[in-house]
Amino acid sequence: MTRSNRPANSQRFVERIPEGDDQTRLVCHDCGFIHYENPKVVVGAVATWEGRILLCRRAIEPRKGFWTLPAGYLELHESAQDGALREAREEAGAELEIDQLLAVYSIPRISQIQLIFRARLRSPDLAAGIETEELDLFAWEDIPWPEIAFPSARWALEHHRELEAEAVFAPRGNPPNALGEFSEL
Amino acid sequence: MTRSNRPANSQRFVERIPEGDDQTRLVCHDCGFIHYENPKVVVGAVATWEGRILLCRRAIEPRKGFWTLPAGYLELHESAQDGALREAREEAGAELEIDQLLAVYSIPRISQIQLIFRARLRSPDLAAGIETEELDLFAWEDIPWPEIAFPSARWALEHHRELEAEAVFAPRGNPPNALGEFSEL
Repeated sequence: MTRSNRPANSQRFVERIPEGDDQTRLVCHDCGFIHYENPKVVVGAVATWEGRILLCRRAIEPRKGFWTLPAGYLELHESAQDGALREAREEAGAELEIDQLLAVYSIPRISQIQLIFRARLRSPDLAAGIETEELDLFAWEDIPWPEIAFPSARWALEHHRELEAEAVFAPRGNPPNALGEFSEL
Repeated sequence: MTRSNRPANSQRFVERIPEGDDQTRLVCHDCGFIHYENPKVVVGAVATWEGRILLCRRAIEPRKGFWTLPAGYLELHESAQDGALREAREEAGAELEIDQLLAVYSIPRISQIQLIFRARLRSPDLAAGIETEELDLFAWEDIPWPEIAFPSARWALEHHRELEAEAVFAPRGNPPNALGEFSEL
Protein backbone atom coordinates (compact mmCIF):
# COMPACT_ATOMS: atom_id res chain seq x y z
CA MET A 1 0.00 0.00 0.00
CA THR A 2 1.00 3.61 -0.51
CA ARG A 3 2.16 5.60 2.46
CA SER A 4 2.72 9.29 2.21
CA ASN A 5 5.18 11.10 4.45
CA ARG A 6 2.52 13.78 4.80
CA PRO A 7 -0.77 13.56 6.67
CA ALA A 8 -3.59 13.23 4.14
CA ASN A 9 -5.49 16.08 5.79
CA SER A 10 -2.51 18.33 6.30
CA GLN A 11 -4.54 21.52 6.21
CA ARG A 12 -4.79 21.11 9.98
CA PHE A 13 -1.02 20.87 10.26
CA VAL A 14 1.25 23.90 10.39
CA GLU A 15 5.01 23.94 9.95
CA ARG A 16 6.92 25.16 13.00
CA ILE A 17 9.94 24.32 15.16
CA PRO A 18 8.71 22.62 18.35
CA GLU A 19 10.26 23.69 21.66
CA GLY A 20 13.60 21.95 22.23
CA ASP A 21 13.87 20.93 18.60
CA ASP A 22 16.08 22.37 15.86
CA GLN A 23 14.04 21.54 12.76
CA THR A 24 10.71 22.48 11.27
CA ARG A 25 8.04 19.82 11.87
CA LEU A 26 4.38 19.49 10.98
CA VAL A 27 2.37 20.26 14.10
CA CYS A 28 -1.41 19.73 14.35
CA HIS A 29 -3.15 23.06 14.81
CA ASP A 30 -5.96 21.34 16.76
CA CYS A 31 -4.25 18.99 19.16
CA GLY A 32 -0.56 19.95 19.08
CA PHE A 33 0.53 16.51 17.88
CA ILE A 34 4.02 16.69 16.34
CA HIS A 35 4.28 14.64 13.16
CA TYR A 36 7.91 13.53 12.96
CA GLU A 37 8.78 12.44 9.45
CA ASN A 38 11.45 9.80 9.17
CA PRO A 39 13.25 8.09 6.34
CA LYS A 40 11.66 4.81 5.27
CA VAL A 41 13.28 1.44 4.80
CA VAL A 42 12.64 -0.59 1.65
CA VAL A 43 13.69 -4.23 1.65
CA GLY A 44 13.91 -6.45 -1.40
CA ALA A 45 15.84 -9.11 -3.25
CA VAL A 46 17.46 -10.10 -6.49
CA ALA A 47 16.26 -13.69 -6.45
CA THR A 48 17.31 -16.33 -8.96
CA TRP A 49 16.26 -19.77 -10.12
CA GLU A 50 18.85 -21.59 -12.25
CA GLY A 51 20.46 -18.25 -13.10
CA ARG A 52 17.24 -16.51 -14.11
CA ILE A 53 16.09 -13.46 -12.17
CA LEU A 54 12.61 -12.93 -10.72
CA LEU A 55 10.94 -9.70 -11.84
CA CYS A 56 7.38 -8.52 -11.19
CA ARG A 57 5.31 -6.20 -13.35
CA ARG A 58 3.74 -3.59 -11.09
CA ALA A 59 -0.05 -3.54 -10.80
CA ILE A 60 0.04 -0.33 -8.72
CA GLU A 61 1.36 3.20 -8.98
CA PRO A 62 3.99 4.51 -9.06
CA ARG A 63 5.29 3.01 -12.31
CA LYS A 64 2.31 0.73 -12.89
CA GLY A 65 3.05 -1.66 -15.76
CA PHE A 66 6.82 -1.49 -15.31
CA TRP A 67 9.02 -4.31 -14.07
CA THR A 68 10.79 -4.36 -10.73
CA LEU A 69 12.28 -6.57 -8.04
CA PRO A 70 10.09 -7.96 -5.25
CA ALA A 71 10.54 -5.22 -2.64
CA GLY A 72 8.54 -3.00 -0.32
CA TYR A 73 8.40 -1.14 2.96
CA LEU A 74 9.78 -2.81 6.05
CA GLU A 75 7.03 -3.26 8.65
CA LEU A 76 7.27 -2.48 12.36
CA HIS A 77 8.93 -5.14 14.52
CA GLU A 78 10.40 -6.93 11.51
CA SER A 79 14.02 -7.70 10.69
CA ALA A 80 15.39 -6.59 7.32
CA GLN A 81 15.73 -10.22 6.18
CA ASP A 82 12.21 -11.15 7.28
CA GLY A 83 10.86 -8.12 5.43
CA ALA A 84 12.57 -9.14 2.18
CA LEU A 85 11.20 -12.70 2.53
CA ARG A 86 7.68 -11.35 3.20
CA GLU A 87 7.70 -9.03 0.20
CA ALA A 88 8.75 -11.87 -2.15
CA ARG A 89 5.98 -14.02 -0.69
CA GLU A 90 3.32 -11.26 -1.00
CA GLU A 91 4.24 -9.99 -4.47
CA ALA A 92 5.38 -13.19 -6.17
CA GLY A 93 4.29 -16.15 -4.02
CA ALA A 94 8.02 -16.87 -3.82
CA GLU A 95 9.93 -18.59 -1.04
CA LEU A 96 13.48 -17.28 -0.85
CA GLU A 97 16.69 -18.31 0.78
CA ILE A 98 18.73 -15.18 1.47
CA ASP A 99 22.41 -15.38 0.63
CA GLN A 100 23.80 -11.99 1.64
CA LEU A 101 23.28 -8.25 1.43
CA LEU A 102 23.83 -7.17 -2.17
CA ALA A 103 23.41 -3.41 -1.82
CA VAL A 104 22.38 -0.48 0.34
CA TYR A 105 21.00 2.41 -1.69
CA SER A 106 20.09 5.86 -0.39
CA ILE A 107 17.42 7.79 -2.29
CA PRO A 108 17.54 11.17 -0.49
CA ARG A 109 14.82 12.86 -2.58
CA ILE A 110 12.20 10.49 -1.19
CA SER A 111 14.08 9.71 2.03
CA GLN A 112 14.43 5.99 1.37
CA ILE A 113 17.09 3.54 2.43
CA GLN A 114 16.91 0.36 0.35
CA LEU A 115 18.40 -2.91 1.58
CA ILE A 116 18.58 -5.37 -1.32
CA PHE A 117 19.61 -8.97 -0.69
CA ARG A 118 21.00 -11.61 -3.01
CA ALA A 119 18.74 -14.66 -2.73
CA ARG A 120 17.84 -17.98 -4.30
CA LEU A 121 14.31 -19.16 -5.01
CA ARG A 122 13.53 -22.37 -3.15
CA SER A 123 11.34 -23.46 -6.06
CA PRO A 124 10.12 -22.01 -9.37
CA ASP A 125 6.52 -22.09 -8.10
CA LEU A 126 5.37 -18.48 -8.29
CA ALA A 127 2.06 -16.65 -8.10
CA ALA A 128 1.46 -12.95 -8.71
CA GLY A 129 0.12 -11.11 -5.65
CA ILE A 130 -2.38 -8.24 -5.77
CA GLU A 131 0.35 -5.65 -6.36
CA THR A 132 1.72 -7.66 -9.30
CA GLU A 133 0.25 -7.79 -12.85
CA GLU A 134 2.46 -10.65 -13.94
CA LEU A 135 5.87 -12.07 -13.15
CA ASP A 136 8.59 -14.03 -14.84
CA LEU A 137 12.11 -15.38 -14.52
CA PHE A 138 14.48 -13.55 -16.87
CA ALA A 139 17.82 -14.60 -18.29
CA TRP A 140 20.21 -11.62 -18.26
CA GLU A 141 19.87 -11.06 -22.03
CA ASP A 142 16.07 -11.01 -21.79
CA ILE A 143 15.71 -8.36 -19.07
CA PRO A 144 13.32 -5.67 -20.40
CA TRP A 145 15.61 -2.71 -19.60
CA PRO A 146 13.41 0.06 -21.05
CA GLU A 147 10.57 -1.22 -18.87
CA ILE A 148 12.43 -1.35 -15.55
CA ALA A 149 10.47 0.69 -13.00
CA PHE A 150 13.15 2.41 -10.91
CA PRO A 151 16.83 3.39 -11.22
CA SER A 152 17.62 1.43 -8.06
CA ALA A 153 16.11 -1.75 -9.55
CA ARG A 154 18.46 -1.35 -12.50
CA TRP A 155 21.42 -0.75 -10.16
CA ALA A 156 20.59 -3.89 -8.21
CA LEU A 157 20.39 -5.99 -11.38
CA GLU A 158 23.75 -4.63 -12.56
CA HIS A 159 25.38 -5.09 -9.16
CA HIS A 160 24.04 -8.63 -9.00
CA ARG A 161 25.58 -9.38 -12.40
CA GLU A 162 28.90 -7.81 -11.35
CA LEU A 163 29.08 -9.88 -8.14
CA GLU A 164 27.64 -13.13 -9.48
CA ALA A 165 30.95 -15.01 -9.19
CA GLU A 166 31.88 -13.58 -5.77
CA ALA A 167 31.21 -15.60 -2.63
CA VAL A 168 32.20 -12.74 -0.30
CA PHE A 169 31.84 -9.08 -1.20
CA ALA A 170 31.11 -5.68 0.30
CA PRO A 171 27.57 -4.62 -0.57
CA ARG A 172 27.37 -1.98 -3.25
CA GLY A 173 25.96 1.52 -2.79
CA ASN A 174 24.57 4.08 -5.24
CA PRO A 175 26.59 4.35 -8.45
CA PRO A 176 28.83 7.46 -8.41
CA ASN A 177 26.77 10.67 -8.36
CA ALA A 178 23.52 8.73 -8.82
CA LEU A 179 20.64 9.70 -6.53
CA GLY A 180 17.86 7.55 -7.95
CA GLU A 181 16.24 10.24 -10.11
CA PHE A 182 14.08 8.95 -12.93
CA SER A 183 16.21 10.94 -15.37
CA GLU A 184 18.92 8.38 -14.62
CA LEU A 185 16.86 5.56 -16.14
CA MET B 1 16.80 14.27 20.43
CA THR B 2 14.39 11.60 21.52
CA ARG B 3 11.65 10.58 19.14
CA SER B 4 8.88 8.31 20.21
CA ASN B 5 6.99 6.12 17.77
CA ARG B 6 3.83 7.20 19.59
CA PRO B 7 2.24 10.64 19.60
CA ALA B 8 2.96 12.35 22.93
CA ASN B 9 -0.72 13.14 23.42
CA SER B 10 -2.04 9.80 22.27
CA GLN B 11 -5.24 10.01 24.31
CA ARG B 12 -6.75 11.61 21.22
CA PHE B 13 -5.65 8.69 19.08
CA VAL B 14 -7.61 5.46 18.81
CA GLU B 15 -6.43 2.18 17.33
CA ARG B 16 -8.39 1.02 14.31
CA ILE B 17 -7.92 -0.41 10.81
CA PRO B 18 -8.35 2.40 8.28
CA GLU B 19 -10.41 1.71 5.14
CA GLY B 20 -8.33 -0.12 2.52
CA ASP B 21 -5.65 -1.03 5.03
CA ASP B 22 -4.95 -4.40 6.63
CA GLN B 23 -3.31 -3.31 9.88
CA THR B 24 -4.28 -1.45 13.01
CA ARG B 25 -3.06 2.16 13.00
CA LEU B 26 -3.38 5.05 15.42
CA VAL B 27 -6.07 7.38 14.11
CA CYS B 28 -6.75 10.83 15.60
CA HIS B 29 -10.25 10.91 17.11
CA ASP B 30 -10.51 14.65 16.35
CA CYS B 31 -9.24 15.08 12.83
CA GLY B 32 -8.99 11.55 11.39
CA PHE B 33 -5.27 11.83 10.76
CA ILE B 34 -3.73 8.36 10.36
CA HIS B 35 -0.41 8.05 12.17
CA TYR B 36 1.61 5.47 10.22
CA GLU B 37 4.41 4.13 12.32
CA ASN B 38 7.50 3.01 10.47
CA PRO B 39 10.78 1.41 11.41
CA LYS B 40 13.54 3.91 12.04
CA VAL B 41 17.04 3.95 10.64
CA VAL B 42 20.02 4.45 12.94
CA VAL B 43 23.38 5.25 11.33
CA GLY B 44 26.71 5.16 13.10
CA ALA B 45 30.36 4.18 12.92
CA VAL B 46 33.16 2.29 14.57
CA ALA B 47 35.80 4.95 13.99
CA THR B 48 39.48 4.51 14.79
CA TRP B 49 42.59 6.61 15.17
CA GLU B 50 45.84 4.62 15.20
CA GLY B 51 43.92 1.48 16.17
CA ARG B 52 42.02 3.08 19.04
CA ILE B 53 38.21 3.25 18.89
CA LEU B 54 36.10 6.36 19.46
CA LEU B 55 33.46 5.96 22.16
CA CYS B 56 31.14 8.60 23.64
CA ARG B 57 29.62 8.61 27.11
CA ARG B 58 25.92 9.42 26.75
CA ALA B 59 24.66 12.67 28.31
CA ILE B 60 21.04 11.75 27.52
CA GLU B 61 18.59 8.96 28.20
CA PRO B 62 18.28 6.15 27.42
CA ARG B 63 21.42 4.74 29.07
CA LYS B 64 22.76 8.11 30.24
CA GLY B 65 26.32 7.70 31.56
CA PHE B 66 27.03 4.60 29.46
CA TRP B 67 29.47 4.43 26.54
CA THR B 68 28.43 3.98 22.94
CA LEU B 69 29.46 4.56 19.32
CA PRO B 70 28.69 7.86 17.61
CA ALA B 71 25.30 7.03 16.07
CA GLY B 72 21.79 8.38 15.76
CA TYR B 73 18.65 8.64 13.64
CA LEU B 74 19.01 9.21 9.94
CA GLU B 75 17.38 12.50 8.95
CA LEU B 76 15.06 13.07 5.99
CA HIS B 77 16.76 13.55 2.60
CA GLU B 78 20.07 12.23 3.89
CA SER B 79 22.14 9.30 2.64
CA ALA B 80 23.18 6.64 5.14
CA GLN B 81 26.84 7.65 4.81
CA ASP B 82 26.11 11.35 5.25
CA GLY B 83 24.06 10.53 8.36
CA ALA B 84 26.92 8.59 9.93
CA LEU B 85 29.33 11.45 9.19
CA ARG B 86 26.89 13.99 10.68
CA GLU B 87 26.35 12.00 13.88
CA ALA B 88 30.12 11.72 14.46
CA ARG B 89 30.44 15.45 13.91
CA GLU B 90 27.52 16.32 16.23
CA GLU B 91 28.34 13.93 19.06
CA ALA B 92 32.14 13.91 18.98
CA GLY B 93 33.30 16.82 16.80
CA ALA B 94 34.88 14.09 14.69
CA GLU B 95 35.57 14.13 10.96
CA LEU B 96 35.41 10.61 9.55
CA GLU B 97 36.42 8.88 6.38
CA ILE B 98 34.06 5.95 5.80
CA ASP B 99 35.66 2.70 4.72
CA GLN B 100 32.75 0.29 4.27
CA LEU B 101 29.57 -1.04 5.83
CA LEU B 102 30.51 -3.06 8.91
CA ALA B 103 27.09 -4.33 9.94
CA VAL B 104 23.33 -4.14 9.52
CA TYR B 105 21.46 -4.91 12.73
CA SER B 106 17.70 -5.33 13.12
CA ILE B 107 16.21 -4.55 16.53
CA PRO B 108 12.59 -5.65 16.00
CA ARG B 109 11.37 -4.78 19.52
CA ILE B 110 11.96 -1.09 18.89
CA SER B 111 11.64 -1.34 15.08
CA GLN B 112 15.16 -0.13 14.35
CA ILE B 113 17.49 -0.91 11.48
CA GLN B 114 21.05 0.07 12.31
CA LEU B 115 23.64 0.67 9.61
CA ILE B 116 27.11 0.77 11.18
CA PHE B 117 30.12 1.74 9.07
CA ARG B 118 33.82 1.08 9.55
CA ALA B 119 35.59 4.44 9.46
CA ARG B 120 38.84 6.24 10.15
CA LEU B 121 39.15 9.52 12.04
CA ARG B 122 40.74 12.18 9.86
CA SER B 123 42.38 13.63 12.99
CA PRO B 124 42.35 13.00 16.72
CA ASP B 125 40.81 16.43 17.35
CA LEU B 126 37.55 15.69 19.12
CA ALA B 127 34.97 17.69 21.07
CA ALA B 128 32.01 16.33 23.00
CA GLY B 129 28.65 17.54 21.63
CA ILE B 130 25.60 18.29 23.79
CA GLU B 131 24.47 14.64 23.80
CA THR B 132 27.93 13.51 24.97
CA GLU B 133 29.26 13.73 28.54
CA GLU B 134 32.81 12.84 27.57
CA LEU B 135 34.60 10.90 24.87
CA ASP B 136 37.80 8.99 24.43
CA LEU B 137 39.81 6.75 22.12
CA PHE B 138 40.03 3.21 23.51
CA ALA B 139 42.54 0.46 22.84
CA TRP B 140 40.70 -2.89 22.59
CA GLU B 141 41.88 -4.00 26.05
CA ASP B 142 40.65 -0.76 27.65
CA ILE B 143 37.05 -0.87 26.35
CA PRO B 144 34.74 -0.47 29.38
CA TRP B 145 32.56 -3.50 28.56
CA PRO B 146 30.28 -3.35 31.61
CA GLU B 147 29.52 0.27 30.76
CA ILE B 148 28.62 -0.23 27.09
CA ALA B 149 25.16 1.25 26.51
CA PHE B 150 23.51 -1.14 24.05
CA PRO B 151 23.87 -4.75 22.88
CA SER B 152 24.29 -3.56 19.29
CA ALA B 153 27.22 -1.31 20.27
CA ARG B 154 28.92 -4.35 21.76
CA TRP B 155 28.17 -6.40 18.61
CA ALA B 156 29.66 -3.67 16.41
CA LEU B 157 32.83 -3.52 18.51
CA GLU B 158 33.20 -7.30 18.34
CA HIS B 159 32.48 -7.44 14.61
CA HIS B 160 34.99 -4.65 14.02
CA ARG B 161 37.63 -6.63 15.90
CA GLU B 162 36.78 -9.81 13.97
CA LEU B 163 37.07 -8.05 10.59
CA GLU B 164 40.00 -5.77 11.36
CA ALA B 165 42.39 -7.61 9.03
CA GLU B 166 39.86 -7.99 6.18
CA ALA B 167 39.88 -5.56 3.27
CA VAL B 168 36.70 -6.98 1.75
CA PHE B 169 33.93 -8.61 3.76
CA ALA B 170 30.20 -9.10 3.90
CA PRO B 171 28.69 -6.88 6.60
CA ARG B 172 27.68 -8.71 9.72
CA GLY B 173 24.14 -9.01 11.07
CA ASN B 174 22.74 -9.74 14.52
CA PRO B 175 24.59 -12.53 16.34
CA PRO B 176 22.63 -15.82 16.20
CA ASN B 177 19.33 -15.52 18.11
CA ALA B 178 20.23 -12.06 19.41
CA LEU B 179 17.53 -9.41 19.15
CA GLY B 180 19.18 -6.54 20.98
CA GLU B 181 17.48 -7.07 24.34
CA PHE B 182 19.25 -5.52 27.31
CA SER B 183 19.34 -8.95 28.94
CA GLU B 184 21.93 -9.83 26.28
CA LEU B 185 24.39 -7.29 27.65
